[in-house]
Amino acid sequence: MASTDKHGDTEYRTSSSTPAPAGVDYFKFDVILRFVLFAASLVAVVVIVTGNQTEVILVPQPVPWPAKFRYTPAFVYFVAALSVTGLYSIITTLASLFASNKPALKTKLLLYFILWDALILGIIASATGTAGGVAYLGLKGNSHVVGWNKICHVYDKFCRHVGASIAVALFGSIVTVLLIWLSAYSIHSRVPK
Amino acid sequence: MASTDKHGDTEYRTSSSTPAPAGVDYFKFDVILRFVLFAASLVAVVVIVTGNQTEVILVPQPVPWPAKFRYTPAFVYFVAALSVTGLYSIITTLASLFASNKPALKTKLLLYFILWDALILGIIASATGTAGGVAYLGLKGNSHVVGWNKICHVYDKFCRHVGASIAVALFGSIVTVLLIWLSAYSIHSRVPK
Repeated sequence: MASTDKHGDTEYRTSSSTPAPAGVDYFKFDVILRFVLFAASLVAVVVIVTGNQTEVILVPQPVPWPAKFRYTPAFVYFVAALSVTGLYSIITTLASLFASNKPALKTKLLLYFILWDALILGIIASATGTAGGVAYLGLKGNSHVVGWNKICHVYDKFCRHVGASIAVALFGSIVTVLLIWLSAYSIHSRVPK
Repeated sequence: MASTDKHGDTEYRTSSSTPAPAGVDYFKFDVILRFVLFAASLVAVVVIVTGNQTEVILVPQPVPWPAKFRYTPAFVYFVAALSVTGLYSIITTLASLFASNKPALKTKLLLYFILWDALILGIIASATGTAGGVAYLGLKGNSHVVGWNKICHVYDKFCRHVGASIAVALFGSIVTVLLIWLSAYSIHSRVPK
Protein backbone atom coordinates (compact mmCIF):
# COMPACT_ATOMS: atom_id res chain seq x y z
CA MET A 1 0.00 0.00 0.00
CA ALA A 2 2.77 2.38 1.03
CA SER A 3 4.84 1.45 -2.01
CA THR A 4 1.92 2.13 -4.38
CA ASP A 5 1.46 5.61 -2.90
CA LYS A 6 5.16 6.37 -3.14
CA HIS A 7 5.25 5.20 -6.76
CA GLY A 8 2.29 7.37 -7.72
CA ASP A 9 3.86 10.32 -5.94
CA THR A 10 7.14 9.96 -7.84
CA GLU A 11 5.37 9.79 -11.18
CA TYR A 12 3.42 12.96 -10.48
CA ARG A 13 6.51 14.80 -9.34
CA THR A 14 8.50 13.80 -12.44
CA SER A 15 5.83 14.92 -14.85
CA SER A 16 5.30 18.24 -13.06
CA SER A 17 9.01 19.14 -12.75
CA THR A 18 9.71 18.69 -16.49
CA PRO A 19 7.03 20.63 -18.32
CA ALA A 20 8.85 21.22 -21.63
CA PRO A 21 9.88 17.69 -22.73
CA ALA A 22 6.63 15.98 -21.73
CA GLY A 23 7.75 12.54 -22.91
CA VAL A 24 7.75 9.27 -21.03
CA ASP A 25 10.96 8.61 -19.10
CA TYR A 26 12.51 5.35 -20.25
CA PHE A 27 15.95 5.98 -18.70
CA LYS A 28 15.53 3.20 -16.12
CA PHE A 29 15.05 0.60 -18.88
CA ASP A 30 17.92 2.20 -20.78
CA VAL A 31 20.33 1.71 -17.86
CA ILE A 32 19.19 -1.91 -17.41
CA LEU A 33 19.54 -2.77 -21.13
CA ARG A 34 22.97 -1.14 -21.33
CA PHE A 35 24.13 -3.15 -18.34
CA VAL A 36 22.76 -6.33 -19.97
CA LEU A 37 24.73 -5.46 -23.12
CA PHE A 38 27.88 -5.04 -21.04
CA ALA A 39 27.32 -8.42 -19.37
CA ALA A 40 26.68 -10.10 -22.74
CA SER A 41 29.87 -8.64 -24.28
CA LEU A 42 31.96 -9.68 -21.29
CA VAL A 43 30.55 -13.24 -21.30
CA ALA A 44 31.04 -13.60 -25.07
CA VAL A 45 34.70 -12.48 -24.89
CA VAL A 46 35.52 -14.63 -21.85
CA VAL A 47 33.84 -17.73 -23.32
CA ILE A 48 35.62 -17.56 -26.70
CA VAL A 49 39.01 -16.71 -25.16
CA THR A 50 38.87 -19.68 -22.77
CA GLY A 51 38.01 -22.17 -25.54
CA ASN A 52 41.60 -23.24 -26.39
CA GLN A 53 41.91 -26.95 -27.09
CA THR A 54 44.84 -29.10 -28.22
CA GLU A 55 44.35 -32.39 -30.05
CA VAL A 56 46.90 -34.83 -31.46
CA ILE A 57 46.59 -34.97 -35.25
CA LEU A 58 48.35 -37.40 -37.62
CA VAL A 59 49.89 -35.14 -40.33
CA PRO A 60 51.88 -37.28 -41.21
CA GLN A 61 53.28 -38.21 -37.77
CA PRO A 62 51.34 -37.53 -34.51
CA VAL A 63 51.74 -33.87 -33.46
CA PRO A 64 49.79 -31.80 -30.93
CA TRP A 65 47.67 -29.35 -32.95
CA PRO A 66 46.10 -26.55 -30.89
CA ALA A 67 42.91 -24.64 -31.74
CA LYS A 68 42.85 -21.06 -30.46
CA PHE A 69 40.60 -18.16 -31.29
CA ARG A 70 43.56 -16.00 -32.33
CA TYR A 71 44.50 -18.40 -35.14
CA THR A 72 41.38 -17.33 -37.07
CA PRO A 73 41.15 -13.65 -38.15
CA ALA A 74 37.34 -13.82 -37.98
CA PHE A 75 37.45 -14.67 -34.26
CA VAL A 76 40.08 -11.99 -33.59
CA TYR A 77 37.74 -9.41 -35.15
CA PHE A 78 34.89 -10.87 -33.07
CA VAL A 79 36.83 -10.48 -29.79
CA ALA A 80 37.96 -6.95 -30.72
CA ALA A 81 34.43 -5.87 -31.67
CA LEU A 82 32.88 -7.28 -28.50
CA SER A 83 35.58 -5.67 -26.35
CA VAL A 84 34.74 -2.32 -27.93
CA THR A 85 31.02 -2.97 -27.34
CA GLY A 86 31.70 -3.87 -23.69
CA LEU A 87 33.71 -0.69 -23.12
CA TYR A 88 31.08 1.41 -24.91
CA SER A 89 28.27 -0.10 -22.84
CA ILE A 90 30.03 0.69 -19.53
CA ILE A 91 30.54 4.32 -20.56
CA THR A 92 26.95 4.76 -21.74
CA THR A 93 25.51 3.01 -18.65
CA LEU A 94 27.31 5.63 -16.55
CA ALA A 95 26.17 8.45 -18.86
CA SER A 96 22.58 7.19 -18.67
CA LEU A 97 22.74 6.96 -14.84
CA PHE A 98 24.29 10.44 -14.65
CA ALA A 99 21.60 11.94 -16.92
CA SER A 100 18.65 10.41 -15.06
CA ASN A 101 18.77 13.35 -12.57
CA LYS A 102 19.21 16.05 -15.26
CA PRO A 103 16.07 16.46 -17.39
CA ALA A 104 17.65 19.25 -19.47
CA LEU A 105 20.36 16.89 -20.74
CA LYS A 106 18.07 14.02 -21.68
CA THR A 107 16.83 14.98 -25.16
CA LYS A 108 20.37 15.76 -26.36
CA LEU A 109 21.66 12.53 -24.83
CA LEU A 110 18.92 10.46 -26.50
CA LEU A 111 20.06 11.78 -29.88
CA TYR A 112 23.70 10.88 -29.16
CA PHE A 113 22.62 7.45 -27.90
CA ILE A 114 20.85 6.71 -31.22
CA LEU A 115 23.85 7.90 -33.26
CA TRP A 116 26.40 5.82 -31.33
CA ASP A 117 24.15 2.80 -30.81
CA ALA A 118 23.66 2.57 -34.59
CA LEU A 119 27.45 2.41 -35.07
CA ILE A 120 27.85 -0.18 -32.32
CA LEU A 121 25.00 -2.22 -33.81
CA GLY A 122 26.87 -2.27 -37.13
CA ILE A 123 30.03 -3.45 -35.36
CA ILE A 124 28.48 -6.15 -33.15
CA ALA A 125 26.17 -7.50 -35.90
CA SER A 126 28.99 -7.74 -38.45
CA ALA A 127 31.27 -9.40 -35.87
CA THR A 128 28.57 -11.95 -35.02
CA GLY A 129 28.10 -12.64 -38.73
CA THR A 130 31.83 -12.96 -39.41
CA ALA A 131 32.42 -15.41 -36.57
CA GLY A 132 29.18 -17.24 -37.40
CA GLY A 133 30.16 -17.77 -41.04
CA VAL A 134 33.51 -19.32 -40.14
CA ALA A 135 32.05 -21.32 -37.21
CA TYR A 136 29.39 -22.80 -39.50
CA LEU A 137 32.15 -23.90 -41.86
CA GLY A 138 33.91 -25.58 -38.93
CA LEU A 139 30.67 -27.30 -37.92
CA LYS A 140 29.49 -28.52 -41.33
CA GLY A 141 32.45 -28.14 -43.68
CA ASN A 142 31.88 -27.31 -47.33
CA SER A 143 31.75 -30.32 -49.66
CA HIS A 144 31.96 -28.08 -52.74
CA VAL A 145 35.46 -26.83 -51.85
CA VAL A 146 38.33 -29.34 -51.85
CA GLY A 147 39.77 -29.60 -48.32
CA TRP A 148 37.34 -27.36 -46.44
CA ASN A 149 36.30 -30.15 -44.07
CA LYS A 150 34.46 -29.83 -40.77
CA ILE A 151 36.65 -29.76 -37.68
CA CYS A 152 34.12 -29.62 -34.85
CA HIS A 153 33.98 -33.40 -34.40
CA VAL A 154 37.67 -33.17 -33.34
CA TYR A 155 37.72 -29.81 -31.52
CA ASP A 156 34.48 -30.34 -29.58
CA LYS A 157 35.27 -28.09 -26.59
CA PHE A 158 36.61 -25.27 -28.78
CA CYS A 159 33.51 -25.38 -30.99
CA ARG A 160 31.15 -25.41 -27.98
CA HIS A 161 32.88 -22.28 -26.64
CA VAL A 162 32.77 -20.54 -30.04
CA GLY A 163 29.09 -21.45 -30.55
CA ALA A 164 28.07 -20.27 -27.08
CA SER A 165 30.01 -17.04 -27.55
CA ILE A 166 28.31 -16.35 -30.89
CA ALA A 167 24.88 -17.04 -29.36
CA VAL A 168 25.58 -14.53 -26.57
CA ALA A 169 26.81 -11.98 -29.14
CA LEU A 170 23.59 -12.48 -31.15
CA PHE A 171 21.65 -11.75 -27.95
CA GLY A 172 23.81 -8.64 -27.51
CA SER A 173 22.94 -7.51 -31.06
CA ILE A 174 19.23 -7.85 -30.25
CA VAL A 175 19.73 -5.82 -27.06
CA THR A 176 21.44 -3.09 -29.14
CA VAL A 177 18.44 -2.99 -31.51
CA LEU A 178 16.15 -2.69 -28.46
CA LEU A 179 18.30 0.19 -27.15
CA ILE A 180 17.86 2.08 -30.45
CA TRP A 181 14.10 1.40 -30.35
CA LEU A 182 13.88 2.64 -26.75
CA SER A 183 15.76 5.87 -27.51
CA ALA A 184 13.67 6.43 -30.65
CA TYR A 185 10.38 5.95 -28.75
CA SER A 186 11.62 8.16 -25.95
CA ILE A 187 12.66 11.02 -28.25
CA HIS A 188 9.44 10.62 -30.30
CA SER A 189 7.32 10.98 -27.13
CA ARG A 190 8.89 14.43 -26.56
CA VAL A 191 7.69 15.81 -29.93
CA PRO A 192 4.46 17.77 -29.44
CA LYS A 193 1.46 16.17 -31.21
CA MET B 1 15.14 31.64 -63.02
CA ALA B 2 11.58 30.42 -62.97
CA SER B 3 12.62 27.19 -61.27
CA THR B 4 14.44 29.10 -58.50
CA ASP B 5 11.33 31.15 -57.75
CA LYS B 6 9.14 28.10 -57.65
CA HIS B 7 11.60 26.35 -55.32
CA GLY B 8 11.70 29.26 -52.87
CA ASP B 9 7.91 29.49 -52.95
CA THR B 10 7.50 25.81 -52.06
CA GLU B 11 9.91 26.06 -49.16
CA TYR B 12 8.06 29.04 -47.69
CA ARG B 13 4.71 27.34 -48.01
CA THR B 14 5.96 24.16 -46.32
CA SER B 15 7.45 25.97 -43.34
CA SER B 16 4.38 28.16 -42.83
CA SER B 17 1.85 25.31 -43.08
CA THR B 18 3.57 23.23 -40.36
CA PRO B 19 3.81 25.37 -37.26
CA ALA B 20 3.83 22.61 -34.63
CA PRO B 21 6.77 20.36 -35.69
CA ALA B 22 9.23 23.16 -36.42
CA GLY B 23 12.08 20.85 -37.34
CA VAL B 24 14.30 20.88 -40.39
CA ASP B 25 12.96 18.85 -43.30
CA TYR B 26 15.48 16.21 -44.31
CA PHE B 27 13.06 14.14 -46.39
CA LYS B 28 14.82 14.98 -49.66
CA PHE B 29 18.10 13.50 -48.40
CA ASP B 30 16.15 10.57 -46.99
CA VAL B 31 14.69 9.72 -50.40
CA ILE B 32 18.11 10.02 -52.07
CA LEU B 33 19.86 7.84 -49.46
CA ARG B 34 17.14 5.20 -49.63
CA PHE B 35 17.45 5.08 -53.40
CA VAL B 36 21.24 4.73 -53.06
CA LEU B 37 20.67 1.84 -50.64
CA PHE B 38 18.37 0.19 -53.18
CA ALA B 39 20.96 0.59 -55.93
CA ALA B 40 23.71 -0.82 -53.69
CA SER B 41 21.63 -3.88 -52.74
CA LEU B 42 20.75 -4.55 -56.37
CA VAL B 43 24.36 -4.22 -57.53
CA ALA B 44 25.65 -6.45 -54.72
CA VAL B 45 23.13 -9.21 -55.50
CA VAL B 46 23.69 -9.06 -59.27
CA VAL B 47 27.49 -9.07 -58.93
CA ILE B 48 27.67 -12.07 -56.60
CA VAL B 49 25.07 -14.07 -58.56
CA THR B 50 26.91 -13.59 -61.87
CA GLY B 51 30.25 -14.73 -60.43
CA ASN B 52 29.96 -18.44 -61.34
CA GLN B 53 33.23 -19.93 -62.53
CA THR B 54 34.21 -23.49 -63.50
CA GLU B 55 37.82 -24.70 -63.30
CA VAL B 56 39.29 -28.11 -64.05
CA ILE B 57 40.72 -29.60 -60.86
CA LEU B 58 42.83 -32.78 -60.53
CA VAL B 59 41.10 -34.78 -57.74
CA PRO B 60 42.40 -37.41 -58.63
CA GLN B 61 41.57 -37.26 -62.33
CA PRO B 62 40.74 -33.95 -64.11
CA VAL B 63 37.11 -32.93 -63.48
CA PRO B 64 35.35 -29.61 -64.00
CA TRP B 65 34.76 -28.12 -60.56
CA PRO B 66 32.36 -25.15 -60.51
CA ALA B 67 32.29 -22.36 -57.92
CA LYS B 68 28.85 -20.85 -57.33
CA PHE B 69 27.55 -18.58 -54.59
CA ARG B 70 24.82 -21.08 -53.69
CA TYR B 71 27.35 -23.74 -52.72
CA THR B 72 28.34 -21.70 -49.65
CA PRO B 73 25.63 -21.09 -47.00
CA ALA B 74 27.28 -17.80 -46.03
CA PHE B 75 26.81 -16.40 -49.55
CA VAL B 76 23.21 -17.68 -49.71
CA TYR B 77 22.46 -15.75 -46.50
CA PHE B 78 24.24 -12.73 -48.01
CA VAL B 79 22.09 -12.80 -51.17
CA ALA B 80 18.88 -13.33 -49.14
CA ALA B 81 19.71 -10.48 -46.74
CA LEU B 82 20.56 -8.06 -49.56
CA SER B 83 17.41 -8.98 -51.45
CA VAL B 84 15.38 -8.17 -48.33
CA THR B 85 17.29 -4.87 -47.98
CA GLY B 86 16.62 -4.02 -51.62
CA LEU B 87 12.90 -4.70 -51.29
CA TYR B 88 12.74 -2.75 -48.02
CA SER B 89 14.54 0.23 -49.55
CA ILE B 90 12.10 0.42 -52.50
CA ILE B 91 9.12 0.39 -50.14
CA THR B 92 10.58 3.04 -47.84
CA THR B 93 11.70 5.24 -50.76
CA LEU B 94 8.06 5.29 -51.91
CA ALA B 95 6.84 5.90 -48.33
CA SER B 96 9.32 8.75 -47.93
CA LEU B 97 8.25 10.31 -51.28
CA PHE B 98 4.57 9.91 -50.35
CA ALA B 99 5.09 11.52 -46.92
CA SER B 100 6.98 14.54 -48.24
CA ASN B 101 3.64 16.23 -49.05
CA LYS B 102 1.99 15.29 -45.73
CA PRO B 103 3.60 17.11 -42.78
CA ALA B 104 1.22 15.51 -40.25
CA LEU B 105 2.55 12.06 -41.10
CA LYS B 106 6.24 12.88 -40.91
CA THR B 107 7.02 12.61 -37.19
CA LYS B 108 5.29 9.24 -36.94
CA LEU B 109 7.05 8.03 -40.08
CA LEU B 110 10.46 9.12 -38.78
CA LEU B 111 9.92 6.93 -35.71
CA TYR B 112 8.98 3.93 -37.86
CA PHE B 113 11.97 4.58 -40.12
CA ILE B 114 14.36 4.42 -37.14
CA LEU B 115 12.75 1.20 -35.85
CA TRP B 116 12.90 -0.61 -39.20
CA ASP B 117 16.24 0.83 -40.29
CA ALA B 118 17.82 -0.53 -37.10
CA LEU B 119 16.54 -4.03 -37.96
CA ILE B 120 17.75 -3.75 -41.56
CA LEU B 121 21.14 -2.49 -40.34
CA GLY B 122 21.45 -5.62 -38.19
CA ILE B 123 20.60 -7.80 -41.20
CA ILE B 124 22.86 -6.13 -43.78
CA ALA B 125 25.81 -5.74 -41.37
CA SER B 126 25.66 -9.37 -40.25
CA ALA B 127 25.34 -10.56 -43.87
CA THR B 128 28.37 -8.48 -44.89
CA GLY B 129 30.30 -9.94 -41.97
CA THR B 130 29.27 -13.52 -42.73
CA ALA B 131 30.23 -13.32 -46.39
CA GLY B 132 33.39 -11.38 -45.51
CA GLY B 133 34.56 -14.01 -43.02
CA VAL B 134 34.25 -16.85 -45.54
CA ALA B 135 35.64 -14.75 -48.43
CA TYR B 136 38.72 -13.87 -46.35
CA LEU B 137 39.26 -17.59 -45.76
CA GLY B 138 39.03 -18.16 -49.54
CA LEU B 139 41.54 -15.37 -50.14
CA LYS B 140 44.14 -16.22 -47.49
CA GLY B 141 43.32 -19.73 -46.29
CA ASN B 142 44.00 -20.70 -42.69
CA SER B 143 47.35 -22.38 -42.09
CA HIS B 144 46.30 -23.42 -38.56
CA VAL B 145 43.52 -25.69 -39.83
CA VAL B 146 44.48 -28.76 -41.88
CA GLY B 147 43.01 -28.45 -45.38
CA TRP B 148 41.50 -24.95 -45.20
CA ASN B 149 43.59 -23.67 -48.10
CA LYS B 150 43.05 -20.51 -50.11
CA ILE B 151 41.10 -20.96 -53.35
CA CYS B 152 41.14 -17.45 -54.84
CA HIS B 153 44.31 -18.07 -56.89
CA VAL B 154 42.25 -20.67 -58.82
CA TYR B 155 38.79 -19.08 -58.83
CA ASP B 156 39.97 -15.56 -59.67
CA LYS B 157 36.78 -14.32 -61.38
CA PHE B 158 34.50 -15.76 -58.68
CA CYS B 159 36.57 -14.14 -55.93
CA ARG B 160 36.62 -10.78 -57.70
CA HIS B 161 32.83 -10.87 -57.93
CA VAL B 162 32.44 -11.90 -54.26
CA GLY B 163 34.89 -9.21 -53.12
CA ALA B 164 33.21 -6.46 -55.14
CA SER B 165 29.79 -7.55 -53.89
CA ILE B 166 30.96 -7.44 -50.25
CA ALA B 167 32.48 -3.98 -50.78
CA VAL B 168 29.17 -2.69 -52.17
CA ALA B 169 27.29 -4.29 -49.24
CA LEU B 170 29.65 -2.58 -46.80
CA PHE B 171 28.84 0.72 -48.52
CA GLY B 172 25.14 -0.17 -48.13
CA SER B 173 25.64 -0.76 -44.38
CA ILE B 174 27.21 2.69 -44.06
CA VAL B 175 24.26 4.22 -45.96
CA THR B 176 21.87 2.48 -43.52
CA VAL B 177 23.75 3.99 -40.55
CA LEU B 178 23.50 7.40 -42.25
CA LEU B 179 19.72 6.87 -42.69
CA ILE B 180 19.32 6.21 -38.95
CA TRP B 181 21.41 9.30 -38.18
CA LEU B 182 19.32 11.42 -40.54
CA SER B 183 16.02 10.25 -39.03
CA ALA B 184 17.38 10.74 -35.50
CA TYR B 185 18.53 14.32 -36.26
CA SER B 186 15.25 15.05 -37.99
CA ILE B 187 13.10 13.81 -35.10
CA HIS B 188 15.39 15.55 -32.57
CA SER B 189 14.95 18.89 -34.36
CA ARG B 190 11.18 18.63 -33.76
CA VAL B 191 11.53 18.46 -29.96
CA PRO B 192 11.03 21.92 -28.45
CA LYS B 193 14.18 23.32 -26.78
